[in-house]
Amino acid sequence: MMNRSDFSEYLAQKRTVIETVLLKIMETFMPENTRLKEAMIYSLMAGGKRMRPILCIAAAESVGGTQDHAMAAACAVEMVHTYSLVHDDLPAMDDDTLRRGKPTCHVVFGEATAILAGDALLTLAFEILSSEGPYRIQNIQMIPEAVRILARAAGPGGMIQGQMEDMAAEGVFLDLDALRHLHALKTGALIEASVELGAVLGRGSAGQVARLKAFAVNIGLAFQVIDDILNVEGDPKIMGKAVGTDRIKKKSTYPSLLGVDSSRAYAARCIDSALHALSGFDNKADPLRAIAVYILERKR
Amino acid sequence: MMNRSDFSEYLAQKRTVIETVLLKIMETFMPENTRLKEAMIYSLMAGGKRMRPILCIAAAESVGGTQDHAMAAACAVEMVHTYSLVHDDLPAMDDDTLRRGKPTCHVVFGEATAILAGDALLTLAFEILSSEGPYRIQNIQMIPEAVRILARAAGPGGMIQGQMEDMAAEGVFLDLDALRHLHALKTGALIEASVELGAVLGRGSAGQVARLKAFAVNIGLAFQVIDDILNVEGDPKIMGKAVGTDRIKKKSTYPSLLGVDSSRAYAARCIDSALHALSGFDNKADPLRAIAVYILERKR
Repeated sequence: MMNRSDFSEYLAQKRTVIETVLLKIMETFMPENTRLKEAMIYSLMAGGKRMRPILCIAAAESVGGTQDHAMAAACAVEMVHTYSLVHDDLPAMDDDTLRRGKPTCHVVFGEATAILAGDALLTLAFEILSSEGPYRIQNIQMIPEAVRILARAAGPGGMIQGQMEDMAAEGVFLDLDALRHLHALKTGALIEASVELGAVLGRGSAGQVARLKAFAVNIGLAFQVIDDILNVEGDPKIMGKAVGTDRIKKKSTYPSLLGVDSSRAYAARCIDSALHALSGFDNKADPLRAIAVYILERKR
Repeated sequence: MMNRSDFSEYLAQKRTVIETVLLKIMETFMPENTRLKEAMIYSLMAGGKRMRPILCIAAAESVGGTQDHAMAAACAVEMVHTYSLVHDDLPAMDDDTLRRGKPTCHVVFGEATAILAGDALLTLAFEILSSEGPYRIQNIQMIPEAVRILARAAGPGGMIQGQMEDMAAEGVFLDLDALRHLHALKTGALIEASVELGAVLGRGSAGQVARLKAFAVNIGLAFQVIDDILNVEGDPKIMGKAVGTDRIKKKSTYPSLLGVDSSRAYAARCIDSALHALSGFDNKADPLRAIAVYILERKR
């Protein structure tokens, strides 16, 4: 396993690279300075953890691929993730005015521009996956599969249906299976796609891809359980957003169904399963292992 | 040239096929009956002219390809067009409650579902282009180019930037060049992509693709000029939407800049240029020629 300081350095280094490339991509694909571009960059650069693109790159590295193999897909998944936050925050949806400690996109740029900035980030993700350029998918034959993996995860059979169910679930009691189903769509699908894209583009074998998908399912679950716990007992200063909102909105959550302690134990079991899925991988998978542990221990 | 009744039959036949395939695609990719699917189908089936998918198929046929070569792309462009209407109609954007004589998506399903239905149609378009299935792109090597053409036209360098500029232009005087630029993005880009996709997937030569793109630029221009004229003197009963709205919103339009008669003459010159671009094509391009004339003469 990586020690804590090596892992911190790994995360910081990947974050820097990803943010640099995201900005370069914005300049390449949108050379003119428009209000639309400003809104897209505002939300893209609002200080996310970059968990999905880092997972994408770490998955590629775990099968012997390089950061460059996965970079286009890493940036595409971060754009899709950002678009989903911009649209979820809209007044007609979750009506959030603060995200990562900053005013949300529609608060700064207005609703119409926020809707279009989200649309643009989603569309640009597919342009990146399919275009020439310094951060392209190098093996053109892999582009159809990459597009398909991202579209399926982000689309009406994945993330978007998850957001529909999440909105419908406010004030409604969900049992554990229903909750798991909702989160598998709303957050799980894109996390899985991030890992799968890295695994495929890093040229993993079918067996490796399958094990990495099992890894991703489990960290996705744990991620959501911890998210729910942080909404109960997290520090709003560290998190950059309000806590206690799930209870106010009467949302079914893991802590509301299982209590905080059992929820944490459940998340720990998920992470054990995730680590087990990596048992056949060598030390090139250490960053993925460290990410799994980080997901369990994170404070924001 | 095709005579009027052959062309009517051609349009009716293509519309029927496209609508049948759109519904089949919805059932294939979204087998479960959800509210999201209902909203997507509501807007997809709200009675559009299907101009973009018909152009896509007709372009494929004009270079010797078949309807099947272009069908996946035809459905994808119609989904992208429909998503753009759903989002443009939102209260935060153009705030339209009626479209093609029917209540708009957000009026029927609420704003949140309309935003997500739009997102889902956009994402599904890319899933269709990249997926296996009965209506897939048959030559997998053409998928990256198809995704790129659609993403570029629909994205922040095309349609979305056009909608941004359209909103910014309300109450602002635009000269003819600025108006042309706005519409080249807002409506032209997707019309051009529809024709280019058909030309490429129908396996046209580079020269044929270039001439078909010139054709598309000109019909796109004429389409918008006629749209503006219909907003002045069209029949709301035939059009299924209100007229006179551009004047109320103080939009710069071709008739407001040139007058109705000069606008119509300008549209006619565009259609002449479009027909000229097809001069090297045989009678397989007759449907495209008839569409060009139809765009000039249309009443809705």
